Amino acid sequence: MEKINRNTRIAAITKILIENPNKVINLNTFTEKFNSAKSTISEDILVIKETLNKFNMGKIETIAGASGGVKYVCEISDKDRKDFAEELCGILKEKDRIIPGNYIYMTDIMYNPDIIKRAGLVLASAFNDKDVDCVVTVETKGIPLAYEVSKMLGVQLVIVRRDTKVTEGTTVSINYVTGSSKRIQTMSLSRKALKSGSKCIFIDDFMKAGGTALGIVNMLKEFDSFLVGIGVMIEDIKTPKKLIEDYISIVKFNGIGEDGTAILFPSK
Amino acid sequence: MEKINRNTRIAAITKILIENPNKVINLNTFTEKFNSAKSTISEDILVIKETLNKFNMGKIETIAGASGGVKYVCEISDKDRKDFAEELCGILKEKDRIIPGNYIYMTDIMYNPDIIKRAGLVLASAFNDKDVDCVVTVETKGIPLAYEVSKMLGVQLVIVRRDTKVTEGTTVSINYVTGSSKRIQTMSLSRKALKSGSKCIFIDDFMKAGGTALGIVNMLKEFDSFLVGIGVMIEDIKTPKKLIEDYISIVKFNGIGEDGTAILFPSK
Repeated sequence: MEKINRNTRIAAITKILIENPNKVINLNTFTEKFNSAKSTISEDILVIKETLNKFNMGKIETIAGASGGVKYVCEISDKDRKDFAEELCGILKEKDRIIPGNYIYMTDIMYNPDIIKRAGLVLASAFNDKDVDCVVTVETKGIPLAYEVSKMLGVQLVIVRRDTKVTEGTTVSINYVTGSSKRIQTMSLSRKALKSGSKCIFIDDFMKAGGTALGIVNMLKEFDSFLVGIGVMIEDIKTPKKLIEDYISIVKFNGIGEDGTAILFPSK
Repeated sequence: MEKINRNTRIAAITKILIENPNKVINLNTFTEKFNSAKSTISEDILVIKETLNKFNMGKIETIAGASGGVKYVCEISDKDRKDFAEELCGILKEKDRIIPGNYIYMTDIMYNPDIIKRAGLVLASAFNDKDVDCVVTVETKGIPLAYEVSKMLGVQLVIVRRDTKVTEGTTVSINYVTGSSKRIQTMSLSRKALKSGSKCIFIDDFMKAGGTALGIVNMLKEFDSFLVGIGVMIEDIKTPKKLIEDYISIVKFNGIGEDGTAILFPSK
């Protein structure tokens, strides 16, 4: 069998690791694929590890033991995080985004892979150390972002629905009160969707008073599961008295200014 | 400024290319980042290109001219595609997936990043040559898959909703008849969501008679846009007379067998 040279191995191993965030890959996978000794592959991985460190592109972690191996863990530098938040504020401030009712039209942003992959990286990096079992969101606008976070963390995505569908089997429905408009809403989740005892994070596009997040907390209780973190793209700071205290956001929104543009700034 | 060695450059360039599918990256980005001559970077990229070819991991394409550069284009080998379809059939055949009404419970599959990233790769690879402007889906179950395809193709995702929301601004709503149960349904899309003249593909989780796909064709007409392809994860072949003829699927579903398990096989 043909020997593969170091450059080629490094390119291939980098691709495999990057495409499987937070998944432990046994070194045997690489020794077999590249017909190389374990020590050789370990040296390749050291190069990749040092490269990611050097350019603040994430981490390679080594897991010891029989079921061990290496995994890629995403990370974003402070500078990249701040640059992204600034860029996002600039996009959200575009004048033609204001629609009747003084809402910001942001659907295109939430469905733009270029933006969502970076927003997902910011949020996933913040929850890397929480050892979560799944990422929860409520349909619809936050789904691509929540999916991106679940992929970066290598865990299952769970989507709570507004309605119930026959294709979901037995579902649990709960009522909750939105924090800002005090309306009663319903959310439902299939019994099969979540294992008992799951550690979850809630990811959404926008947080006002936090009524939806509080609804999620109550929904998770029905599944003997619990929330260990909340991350949103945009936080409305004009709505006071949040029902939820502990969360992170990428940008803060403070209403529409007198000049007709949205007031926004990076969260930290 | 420090010189960066070839191994390090190859690891970093591979990561940047893989994380930006279908995006042209100018070589100057790399010459500046790594303080290297263009000829050196070109050699690095040749190594990466040959590596991807060798292991059937996708393509690196070179775009000439002032705005040119290189881009990563996803691709899946026939073997990997078949293996994935077989694996998917196995998962879908699990006995406890059958829920009342003889539906297959597949929500967990559609929200599993490990499965969806491979399904997205299969579908995106099939539409790589269509030069599409955006990927369209209908909420909710197909959103992660459609997002994955849009990311691999480097284009905007557009999600048609069942309801209308104040945060969407002006919307267009159309009625359509589902092909199997002949019920009238409504779908709506924000006027801001889609540029006139867009070439779109429609991605969904499941296709029965094709009523939803036909609805999308009519919705796109309202935006002077048009469909150039349809891709679904699962195609129901028990429902005859499709309203739509031209589409691709990953697996075919032929109802529930007498032994109580679903009958499924890979599409090609």
